[in-house]
Amino acid sequence: MVSFENDYSTGAHPEVLKRLCETNLKAAKGYGADEFSESAKKKIISALGTDDAEVWFLTGGTQTNAVVISTLLSDEEGVLSATTGHINAHESGAVEYTGHKVLTLPQKGGKISATELEAFLTGFYADETREHTVFPGMVYISHPTEYGTLYAKSELEDISSVCHRYGMKLFLDGARLGYALASPDTDVTMKDIATLCDVFYIGGTKVGALCGEAVVFMRGCCPKHFLSSVKKRGALLAKGRLLGVQFDALFSDGLYLSIGRHALITAEKMKAIFAERGIRPFIDSPTNQQFFILENERLDRLKEKVAFSVLEPFDETRTVVRFVTSWSTTENDLTELAAALDE
Amino acid sequence: MVSFENDYSTGAHPEVLKRLCETNLKAAKGYGADEFSESAKKKIISALGTDDAEVWFLTGGTQTNAVVISTLLSDEEGVLSATTGHINAHESGAVEYTGHKVLTLPQKGGKISATELEAFLTGFYADETREHTVFPGMVYISHPTEYGTLYAKSELEDISSVCHRYGMKLFLDGARLGYALASPDTDVTMKDIATLCDVFYIGGTKVGALCGEAVVFMRGCCPKHFLSSVKKRGALLAKGRLLGVQFDALFSDGLYLSIGRHALITAEKMKAIFAERGIRPFIDSPTNQQFFILENERLDRLKEKVAFSVLEPFDETRTVVRFVTSWSTTENDLTELAAALDE
Amino acid sequence: MVSFENDYSTGAHPEVLKRLCETNLKAAKGYGADEFSESAKKKIISALGTDDAEVWFLTGGTQTNAVVISTLLSDEEGVLSATTGHINAHESGAVEYTGHKVLTLPQKGGKISATELEAFLTGFYADETREHTVFPGMVYISHPTEYGTLYAKSELEDISSVCHRYGMKLFLDGARLGYALASPDTDVTMKDIATLCDVFYIGGTKVGALCGEAVVFMRGCCPKHFLSSVKKRGALLAKGRLLGVQFDALFSDGLYLSIGRHALITAEKMKAIFAERGIRPFIDSPTNQQFFILENERLDRLKEKVAFSVLEPFDETRTVVRFVTSWSTTENDLTELAAALDE
Amino acid sequence: MVSFENDYSTGAHPEVLKRLCETNLKAAKGYGADEFSESAKKKIISALGTDDAEVWFLTGGTQTNAVVISTLLSDEEGVLSATTGHINAHESGAVEYTGHKVLTLPQKGGKISATELEAFLTGFYADETREHTVFPGMVYISHPTEYGTLYAKSELEDISSVCHRYGMKLFLDGARLGYALASPDTDVTMKDIATLCDVFYIGGTKVGALCGEAVVFMRGCCPKHFLSSVKKRGALLAKGRLLGVQFDALFSDGLYLSIGRHALITAEKMKAIFAERGIRPFIDSPTNQQFFILENERLDRLKEKVAFSVLEPFDETRTVVRFVTSWSTTENDLTELAAALDE
Repeated sequence: MVSFENDYSTGAHPEVLKRLCETNLKAAKGYGADEFSESAKKKIISALGTDDAEVWFLTGGTQTNAVVISTLLSDEEGVLSATTGHINAHESGAVEYTGHKVLTLPQKGGKISATELEAFLTGFYADETREHTVFPGMVYISHPTEYGTLYAKSELEDISSVCHRYGMKLFLDGARLGYALASPDTDVTMKDIATLCDVFYIGGTKVGALCGEAVVFMRGCCPKHFLSSVKKRGALLAKGRLLGVQFDALFSDGLYLSIGRHALITAEKMKAIFAERGIRPFIDSPTNQQFFILENERLDRLKEKVAFSVLEPFDETRTVVRFVTSWSTTENDLTELAAALDE
Repeated sequence: MVSFENDYSTGAHPEVLKRLCETNLKAAKGYGADEFSESAKKKIISALGTDDAEVWFLTGGTQTNAVVISTLLSDEEGVLSATTGHINAHESGAVEYTGHKVLTLPQKGGKISATELEAFLTGFYADETREHTVFPGMVYISHPTEYGTLYAKSELEDISSVCHRYGMKLFLDGARLGYALASPDTDVTMKDIATLCDVFYIGGTKVGALCGEAVVFMRGCCPKHFLSSVKKRGALLAKGRLLGVQFDALFSDGLYLSIGRHALITAEKMKAIFAERGIRPFIDSPTNQQFFILENERLDRLKEKVAFSVLEPFDETRTVVRFVTSWSTTENDLTELAAALDE
Repeated sequence: MVSFENDYSTGAHPEVLKRLCETNLKAAKGYGADEFSESAKKKIISALGTDDAEVWFLTGGTQTNAVVISTLLSDEEGVLSATTGHINAHESGAVEYTGHKVLTLPQKGGKISATELEAFLTGFYADETREHTVFPGMVYISHPTEYGTLYAKSELEDISSVCHRYGMKLFLDGARLGYALASPDTDVTMKDIATLCDVFYIGGTKVGALCGEAVVFMRGCCPKHFLSSVKKRGALLAKGRLLGVQFDALFSDGLYLSIGRHALITAEKMKAIFAERGIRPFIDSPTNQQFFILENERLDRLKEKVAFSVLEPFDETRTVVRFVTSWSTTENDLTELAAALDE
Repeated sequence: MVSFENDYSTGAHPEVLKRLCETNLKAAKGYGADEFSESAKKKIISALGTDDAEVWFLTGGTQTNAVVISTLLSDEEGVLSATTGHINAHESGAVEYTGHKVLTLPQKGGKISATELEAFLTGFYADETREHTVFPGMVYISHPTEYGTLYAKSELEDISSVCHRYGMKLFLDGARLGYALASPDTDVTMKDIATLCDVFYIGGTKVGALCGEAVVFMRGCCPKHFLSSVKKRGALLAKGRLLGVQFDALFSDGLYLSIGRHALITAEKMKAIFAERGIRPFIDSPTNQQFFILENERLDRLKEKVAFSVLEPFDETRTVVRFVTSWSTTENDLTELAAALDE
């Protein structure tokens, strides 16, 4: 069955796998002190436009969010997120497991706004009993968001400015960052992110790696003895090389962006296939996650031929569904999808 | 430089890597619901001599210990371990991070005894103020231990018997289980472990995988909604296939034991090389970790040619060192080691 | 300055204090095993209409909420609460500190409804990815709520019914329970609460004690080794007698209800004082917390003579304020308040 | 039955209770912002010989230890304690519940030594894999210890010096501090403690209060937003006045030391009673906790007339027992004890 279910259903991009094979027999230091990780870190830093950064590799997205948030927040602080933010909605309470509250902000298309953020903060600091509540210590945003949408550079600037005015850190979850950076519709570059955020991660798992996320701490904000904190959370790989080799491949010869571009071009073709058949998008997404409103009857027929995600009822007779492209989506996959829709 | 530093310095066993390459483009369900994981679980269960077991894959050893211990203990309980147990000595407090205390028992060669265990429990239950202390809810043992030693079957039987008499679970950390099972000196089989322990894990990372440990919950002791608990701890891989494919390879055609045997044969040859040069073992280990007492001068010379681990001072002029073999140790490595020792 | 700031600004009700003095020199067992605690527990249980209950004393409200919720939830579960629930809004993230998420429901006047609750649960169980979210394990309600309002018996019955249909526990925070039970407008009795809830607490701190809350676990739901869990959370008093003696007094000769009645009668008089001066209530509260909408100018004048709580802006020129009565509110306090409002 | 079971079996010292009665009807701010707490803090600070200190009141000893340790340690750090330290042996794992490990040091009579401490630290910093272990961030000592013994000033100076040389904080648990300071055998004053320790607490519960401990943070080491951290741990009393009033009484007119002196004089008389009957002390304690070795037969007879604590078997026929005096021990109690011993 052809799959548009997500961007992690196949293995690694062939170039990533090739690098794993080539380096396999070379002995290396454990726990991320290997030469492959060092090389990958250098390549990532060179993409930031500044070397005032520190890069660490972790294994998955939820793990990364929990490790970053719990090591950067002070005891009395929580993290602000859109209600639809992955940390609030879809990580089984991993942030709360570390003892910190997720404070929620309203969202539009998965995005928060500087205005809503500032309104929250104004209210918080006007409240004389605020010591009995949770201090806002960090803002979490995802880019692309859970709805595939992107922040404009001016939106990020405004959010970043509010954060820093109130002494908060800005953390960007880039689980699908490759699909943001490669978009022809974005004015946000990796350098902008490095400038505006205090910490962010460059997603590997959903952008061609078997596993792995690269966390970038900007301007000295990496916690002291971070390796111990990672180990303490069960997040330190003995064969850290597994992450290093993969990111070294992803950041060689423009592979990371190239994966993003392939998925976006494919996504546009997929959108056209739906549009030609009069199927409405649920939201306007410029990235590799596309959301449509399907008649329930059509949905039932379609799911026998194509794998995709069912999100939520739209109304009595229609449902919101998600179709996702990736580095491994082929022309043939699209042809099969079109055929299945026509049945 | 030739490396005997540990059993996780190279990549994956070639057969494991081959399987990753072969399956790479096949789309699969995420989060461990893939067909490769299903196949691997079946193969593992068939090695247990009973199908009253449930298998889950996690990514690394410390993670596995913390997830298993924290999901199986009740609120008021802690876990008993040898003072030298990995969870007590070398995991940055990962168990305590989950809110549970590690209670320590004396050890010999890394092993605890049923006698010492029972003495602890007798004292505990005689103490009228025990509600103000931590209840012993589980016993943690490693096999092989951190010193490469192995429990005899009768020792495991005795420990298991005490555990169950006192309503405690027995958890066996098999990070290096392959090197235990393959030993010609052991009378402990996988089936014995499945019979005597309530939960144990079959190590992958240190036995030929890039990463991955297979947790086996026996006789219905897997926690309800375990997937959520794994996710909550940041330990759930989106591409669960990465673990499934590897364990499927490790448990095909006797590969897991074959890796163990190769390392043990190599370890015996390595021991001989040291013995021939009059270098004393620190402890008698039948597995792939070997400990020697090196003159400090010799140590300084040797470390320019060979990578190994320095453990602790033995006395003023000598040091305890560790040399480890693995699936990737070659005859050539041994020759280089011998030459380096002779310099 | 006369104070209507809250119901914990004075010490203990004189009868409570008297009992502390009378019993002071009598030696007793520590940690709650004293005869005073035993007596108090019996008196409380006799008020429940069933003896299938277990009573424990804790020191304060936030502590009680965190201890009860964290010991009754399973690892994968969170607690459902109104957005305005004390645990969500005003406890510095104490529930999250225990590793569990507070899941929020919409509220009206501080109350949740069975309908909204069931809608949440229907959505939750329809979601195929629910294992990646937080399981609803318990419903938390406060009675009176944070806005002084009360659930009707039929509302509690409906909520209780939904909870039990979905295998969830119902927990009632009775920090101000005395002011609910004594209300002439309520049809909810202590026996109803004992029948409909799985666990609840009878507030002492805000109803005449120096400190102390009585947790009632119904029908065998008290966690095993609860004393150890209480100790582990730093919530076990060495002189448990302090709590036992006070609750013994509160539950002798109808004192608990009598305190409630006094405060409610006083609250009605206070309401009249405001109404006579054309000052609008913000919400219709039948208990000892009353909320009014004050002109900002009046507020500024008033606060020089009377202590009260400022909640939030109502609009540009008006503010929501809270005035609270208690066992210690006197006729003279009311006269001073009226005079201050007339200035 | 006459009780020597502990120093928390009776209520409050009459002077403390009197102050509670006198202040009972006076309205005060909640959560520790009351005038009584302010007054008590000033009196405590004036006893320190420096005003570079901050005082907070908490409710009990285990709570205080957990709050102080968990708010002062960094993520990667644990706390060093004697194996017999209260936090390691008798608090149901309250420190571990906060996610931090208790690292143990050998003890003599409940005390650690600067030499053993430094040996631990030397080993720790020589270990190249220390990032995989728990960093020593704080040293916990109790004074008097769990065996009633006292540190000499020179011992404290040495421990303090090692702590600060290694960047660690020194925390002194003074649950029974009054019995240390009042000892004729000590050369350690409150001012010494304030000089040598970074944080310590002055016990109230076991020295005449109904509940309450006064934490003293020296030289700016109080965590930011400490009130929120206290609230988050369920340790903030609404009627903070309860603690303030009691400490205000304890630190008026020399009451705190006077309570200590009374208990020590009584303890000496009690020691004499045992000595005259040839009953051996288990350890030489200069404070209000006295340990004896009793014949089991005598123990059985004695416990029908006198309440005391049974600690542990000494040998086949004898047992270690504990007898404790307090502010409430009377001459008559001693007479009854002597008579009971003679039966």
